[in-house]
Amino acid sequence: MPRVLVFALVFIGFALPALAQPQDDLERLRRAALTSDYAYRQVAHLCNNIGLRLSGSAQAAGAVQYVAEQLRQLGLEVRLEKVSVPHWVRGVEAGTLTRYAGQVPGTSQKLALTALGGSVATPAAGLEAEVVVVQSFDALVALGREKVAGKIVLFNRPFDRQMAAQGQAGEAYGQAVIYRGGGASAAARLGAVAALVRSAGGANYRLPHTGALRYASDAPQIPAAAVAGEDADLIAALAAQGPVRLRLTLTPQSLPDIESYNVVADLKGSVHPEQVVIVSGHLDSWDLGTGAIDDAAGVAMAMQTAQLLKQLQLVPERTIRVIAWMNEENGLRGGRAYFEAHKGELANHVAAIESDFGAGHPLGIYAKANAKALERLAPAAAVLDRQGAGLIQPAQEVGADIGPLTSAGVPGFGLLQDGRTYFDYHHTAADTLDKIVPAELAENAAVMAVLAYSIANLSEALPR
Amino acid sequence: MPRVLVFALVFIGFALPALAQPQDDLERLRRAALTSDYAYRQVAHLCNNIGLRLSGSAQAAGAVQYVAEQLRQLGLEVRLEKVSVPHWVRGVEAGTLTRYAGQVPGTSQKLALTALGGSVATPAAGLEAEVVVVQSFDALVALGREKVAGKIVLFNRPFDRQMAAQGQAGEAYGQAVIYRGGGASAAARLGAVAALVRSAGGANYRLPHTGALRYASDAPQIPAAAVAGEDADLIAALAAQGPVRLRLTLTPQSLPDIESYNVVADLKGSVHPEQVVIVSGHLDSWDLGTGAIDDAAGVAMAMQTAQLLKQLQLVPERTIRVIAWMNEENGLRGGRAYFEAHKGELANHVAAIESDFGAGHPLGIYAKANAKALERLAPAAAVLDRQGAGLIQPAQEVGADIGPLTSAGVPGFGLLQDGRTYFDYHHTAADTLDKIVPAELAENAAVMAVLAYSIANLSEALPR
Repeated sequence: MPRVLVFALVFIGFALPALAQPQDDLERLRRAALTSDYAYRQVAHLCNNIGLRLSGSAQAAGAVQYVAEQLRQLGLEVRLEKVSVPHWVRGVEAGTLTRYAGQVPGTSQKLALTALGGSVATPAAGLEAEVVVVQSFDALVALGREKVAGKIVLFNRPFDRQMAAQGQAGEAYGQAVIYRGGGASAAARLGAVAALVRSAGGANYRLPHTGALRYASDAPQIPAAAVAGEDADLIAALAAQGPVRLRLTLTPQSLPDIESYNVVADLKGSVHPEQVVIVSGHLDSWDLGTGAIDDAAGVAMAMQTAQLLKQLQLVPERTIRVIAWMNEENGLRGGRAYFEAHKGELANHVAAIESDFGAGHPLGIYAKANAKALERLAPAAAVLDRQGAGLIQPAQEVGADIGPLTSAGVPGFGLLQDGRTYFDYHHTAADTLDKIVPAELAENAAVMAVLAYSIANLSEALPR
Repeated sequence: MPRVLVFALVFIGFALPALAQPQDDLERLRRAALTSDYAYRQVAHLCNNIGLRLSGSAQAAGAVQYVAEQLRQLGLEVRLEKVSVPHWVRGVEAGTLTRYAGQVPGTSQKLALTALGGSVATPAAGLEAEVVVVQSFDALVALGREKVAGKIVLFNRPFDRQMAAQGQAGEAYGQAVIYRGGGASAAARLGAVAALVRSAGGANYRLPHTGALRYASDAPQIPAAAVAGEDADLIAALAAQGPVRLRLTLTPQSLPDIESYNVVADLKGSVHPEQVVIVSGHLDSWDLGTGAIDDAAGVAMAMQTAQLLKQLQLVPERTIRVIAWMNEENGLRGGRAYFEAHKGELANHVAAIESDFGAGHPLGIYAKANAKALERLAPAAAVLDRQGAGLIQPAQEVGADIGPLTSAGVPGFGLLQDGRTYFDYHHTAADTLDKIVPAELAENAAVMAVLAYSIANLSEALPR
């Protein structure tokens, strides 16, 4: 999911100008999207028939072939562009509280936890240590090495559900996820033997939320896992009563990098074929669920942009490039590889669009583009406003995979979606097909298609 | 949870009569309950410090000792009454789809499932067979032996979430749970090698819901598990596209019955000590979560009835008997053993109260009693109405453990609670302490205490 930092809510409320664009075609696209189940069928196949798609997995490789074939069937020019990806494989994962206040002799408490992506392993038989619970990095540092060395640190920072319910899910996530990313190294710097983080997620159904960690170069690499919110509460409650000991077993493996691909498929422009508008989502997923909201949905929307244009026999003036990115979740190698391979062609990248925040009801568009560029979106916004999706909201980041492009000045766009429940499922076993509401996915497909086609047919390329 | 069949919603709206009872004391009890954290602390200890309490487990035995000691500390006369309970132990549980349409070669799909309580085991290496999906017993029978023999049957009857949201959670559960109870034998009669049931629960967080099955005497005993709703959807979707094969491994064990106990603790009546009003919940739980809503909450409310009377120095005229039942979940042995041991004293059992539906906001009281008896509850209802809990609703069943007593004519009562989310967590790993809202638990404790004390102090015993 994108690390979206929103600056301000801006509704671009232009009176409709005399249109240089074929607005009727935008409306046809929108209506065709809303009555199509193409995107939903793609999500269903990716999730149900293929399943988890973690980078390096056979399923990810199968998904690359599947999406490429689907796009070929649409008549697009399809290339697989090489990406060397990490190949991290989850192993056994178990956590058991072995000593705590009030314990019935001979018993223990089993935790719901899952290894963080990229974690090193514990010894095969596990490790056992006392748990120290902190709410923040500052609190950890305040404890000092003496109280942390040899222990397992639990970062017990709760996800702010109220904030998420109020529509700031991304911000709530941002506050919590820093411990997932940096907790292990912060704990290791003080001599901890392992780290746990409270899951960065909004629901209370005993679900651990995985996700990538980042080992800092100045700290030993220690094993790390996410515990469900309930288990963080349990440990914290017991630790307030006396020492708590935990046996932790994680046996993931980091295998050698493996060759994978971005799927890149062009629907050639009729006037400026060398100029490109990217529509995209990421094809890889985490390995606990089947990656419906994160991010089969985004891939399916991008595929549907091309499908709708073919269905309506609309030929864009600039090339519409569908990309299914590889390795958003644990490396961003796909976005980087594309940038490296195409950095000589940035001037011809007119815009990059990515959806990676599920498929909730869309309200409009996130934009990382200048004010002049935003003005050009007025015709698209006017059409999308008919389905309540006409907002254009400036943002600092609009998509992780397109980040290298947008950082280099390519105008970037994301979908502004209702994400209030996104983090209930994000990176969990419950990210499955049923989390997609078909009608809302279709609304999102409409937004991506209208936006992309509108930009592809502008009389002049978007200003930078 | 009780299998409550509600006949009609009846608000007993008597004008307050001249009261023979000390209504001020009922109000004092109510207020004391609402400002106490005693019940919550008991739930916290049972869930956090003791943990799961499946019949036969060391934790269940520890919980018996703990509750007995707590009640002794209150000054009650405590007895442990023997109950021989089943000793079923969960083992390995794994399900993997090994063949299905569109499968990437060499891959499989892992299911979220859990063995049903009492299930026999598969071979240690598992068994593998094609899955046949049905929505009902009738649909299964219509398939016939030819299409079922040698297969694994999935009963894919969804829990009616809309019905639950509208306040009929018990009824929604009743419609779904018949497949958990009887599905294995129905499938076995047609030659199936194993049975799966869609979890009887209301949420969509990839949680399997366990619970007891019943093997019929006329069918082979085959292994059975509950799959999460998502996994039932997945199997059904794939089965609609072609054959689906499943490898199922379940290694539970049914060990010899083991001795356990009902905790029975009397606060002696000052006028009719031989007459008894039971307040109760069940101490055993399933083994996936820690049994907070099912049913540490009920036990804690019953304990608090005694605690409040002691705190306020109120001596009931009849004996208040606190019972923490053993083995509600997979045998009902505790309720039956109590009935056998006390069936000569039924005339002295004035009333039996049980709470086993969580700790959601209470609206009043379920009653299995005659109209004359209900009239006597008016003073209690009037006091409880001040907190919105004054409804008295006739019901056919009011509590599983007190079922033998109420079937024999003892007036029985349960708590009428907001159960709209109860089945989201019921019998899952997510039945943990955080599901208890302390203020709502206190409201429930108030209802039980006021009802029990009111009945204990009636000038005449409740009519039958």
